[in-house]
Amino acid sequence: MPRIITLTTDFGASSPYVAAMKGVILSINPDVTLVDITHAIEPQDIRQGALVLADAARWFPPDTIHVAVVDPGVGTSRAIVYARIAGQDFIAPDNGLLSRLARSTLPSTIISVTERQFWLSEVSATFHGRDIMAPVAARLSLGLEPSRLGTARRELHQLEWTEARVSGNKIQGSVQSIDSFGNLVTDISADALAGVPRGEEVAIVCDEHETRGIFKTYAEQPEMTLIALVGSSGKLELAIVGDSAAIMLDVRAGAPVTVTW
Amino acid sequence: MPRIITLTTDFGASSPYVAAMKGVILSINPDVTLVDITHAIEPQDIRQGALVLADAARWFPPDTIHVAVVDPGVGTSRAIVYARIAGQDFIAPDNGLLSRLARSTLPSTIISVTERQFWLSEVSATFHGRDIMAPVAARLSLGLEPSRLGTARRELHQLEWTEARVSGNKIQGSVQSIDSFGNLVTDISADALAGVPRGEEVAIVCDEHETRGIFKTYAEQPEMTLIALVGSSGKLELAIVGDSAAIMLDVRAGAPVTVTW
Amino acid sequence: MPRIITLTTDFGASSPYVAAMKGVILSINPDVTLVDITHAIEPQDIRQGALVLADAARWFPPDTIHVAVVDPGVGTSRAIVYARIAGQDFIAPDNGLLSRLARSTLPSTIISVTERQFWLSEVSATFHGRDIMAPVAARLSLGLEPSRLGTARRELHQLEWTEARVSGNKIQGSVQSIDSFGNLVTDISADALAGVPRGEEVAIVCDEHETRGIFKTYAEQPEMTLIALVGSSGKLELAIVGDSAAIMLDVRAGAPVTVTW
Repeated sequence: MPRIITLTTDFGASSPYVAAMKGVILSINPDVTLVDITHAIEPQDIRQGALVLADAARWFPPDTIHVAVVDPGVGTSRAIVYARIAGQDFIAPDNGLLSRLARSTLPSTIISVTERQFWLSEVSATFHGRDIMAPVAARLSLGLEPSRLGTARRELHQLEWTEARVSGNKIQGSVQSIDSFGNLVTDISADALAGVPRGEEVAIVCDEHETRGIFKTYAEQPEMTLIALVGSSGKLELAIVGDSAAIMLDVRAGAPVTVTW
Repeated sequence: MPRIITLTTDFGASSPYVAAMKGVILSINPDVTLVDITHAIEPQDIRQGALVLADAARWFPPDTIHVAVVDPGVGTSRAIVYARIAGQDFIAPDNGLLSRLARSTLPSTIISVTERQFWLSEVSATFHGRDIMAPVAARLSLGLEPSRLGTARRELHQLEWTEARVSGNKIQGSVQSIDSFGNLVTDISADALAGVPRGEEVAIVCDEHETRGIFKTYAEQPEMTLIALVGSSGKLELAIVGDSAAIMLDVRAGAPVTVTW
Repeated sequence: MPRIITLTTDFGASSPYVAAMKGVILSINPDVTLVDITHAIEPQDIRQGALVLADAARWFPPDTIHVAVVDPGVGTSRAIVYARIAGQDFIAPDNGLLSRLARSTLPSTIISVTERQFWLSEVSATFHGRDIMAPVAARLSLGLEPSRLGTARRELHQLEWTEARVSGNKIQGSVQSIDSFGNLVTDISADALAGVPRGEEVAIVCDEHETRGIFKTYAEQPEMTLIALVGSSGKLELAIVGDSAAIMLDVRAGAPVTVTW
């Protein structure tokens, strides 16, 4: 069975930089299955990259190799790491890009990628995705032992991740990301909402916008209504039926969201 | 030979939702060939999705499996359907997304997708593309008999499709879609134009814009000229040489187009 | 090993025209590996297409088949050509799209693609990418001898390419392209810069903007600083740390760049 290598970058939807990485990978292992997770991470937005990677990776089969390149510090002292997390392989700059994944499942192995024999022979200072991460991923897909990539280490670089807080009859959270429909995805999980007593009327407030009740689907209310529902990633979402909540409400990632009952 | 599964959605050019569907498919059948038709259908624009799918599918080999997800009614009572049309397999919400295809070729089989054993074990209310359609497509690609997906039915949900009308020395049609170059693709077919007597001067009017003659190629006239020609999908198109007719003329889908001679 | 076919077009990031080409290719050879180089070439910008193709192709393995479609003259007398360049196969309209590649390595074979038996049976006047280039590429991937595609010829259509000029203590060049981060990629090569005496202070001026010194990485200076560095394609680049130089400085391709010391 061919191994799968996924790519997650901030290179833009149709950047030839992505193709250069694919060319390097296919030059080493022409028999790999390449899948784009996304190349639309906002330039240098490590947090967004970390969230998307954590959401998407879990849908892939065991032993998938994920390469993530959101790398504003390319060429500086930041390390490149290999990590084994939840039965899959990850290669990324050690700048927090793997910290969201590592938050739910502790990595079983972490290795600083230092062994130059597995890189391209010439390494630029500005494109380690192509010159280091792509060839390393391709060699892993051919069966290279991860331990040969460099020296084991204990920790990954961490970012701070907010978490919704439940207290009394209130959950305080925030907008964590905005999806391609403009839906506001919060950090309030279905589990946190499970604590709301049945039959209670719930009010959800985001910035100054308020809605009542938690719906099951987008289509239950008329067009242009602000609704709350548990979205496909298991988090509370705010959506405008038939339109973009992010644009209509002018809300960005980080905006506070409160649920009361 | 590996089976082909294509994806057509309104998720945006680089949405991680597309990757989630691919991960689910590859988890079930790692040996499938995945092809993106487009993910740039305008959010929730079922008509556009239906047109693009009908245009693109016919270029794929027999037995290709096409999954289309433009699904504003996700989680409501709208069915998910499997249809066999012109020797290919289609999976989509039954909201008209297959109605353009089914207009030229009657489906030989239509099945309501109801057998949960072929879905993901947990099904969200908001992402049936990932939780139902992707696993069903993957299982079809492994040889699952379509009849096992659910119960046969007779009809697909229909949308109304305009058709150009020929009367006397006039064809009345409309702009059906706008392609990525900004060309205005009409519902006036080469067949309809074949009725124009040879040697007659033809005038084409779209909104208040007029052009004369039907050309063979985009490059026959100077830059910035409005021209009409039969495009690659066999329909009359209006184009501005070297620029976007949609932007320059401010014309949208639905605008009336008249051909007289 | 499956052959690789890459696609480079100006069809837009998610155009169904790309899918039509893929469908045609897979109908002829379902066992090929398809890779998108980019579909975001500016509409009809042959120069940009030529630059991107030359940059990206070299990362692919020998015998990769590259199909490039930036084709404003489709349907006119411009030829379609096959060329063997640096151990890879290229198919494109003969409008200069291969002229950047052919500048560094002389093609070993050039053939006018004229043999209709290898095309689709029906050829539109406006989409030779789908009707001629895609089927020809698919047949090459199955082992068709390139010589059977048509008649050999000696030359490809050339475009004029500027080159930075070194004179005394000055290099005069220009911005050749803008990458997806907004970095300004010049035509001043690392080789040309190697002539600068060690220890000399270097000044780089682009339009009226000036910066001093050549850095190794993007992250060495504070955010919003204009810096110069040798980028991943071996050319001098101008970048704004953490932002888009093209937008911040309002600079386009063609802008003059001078290095003095």
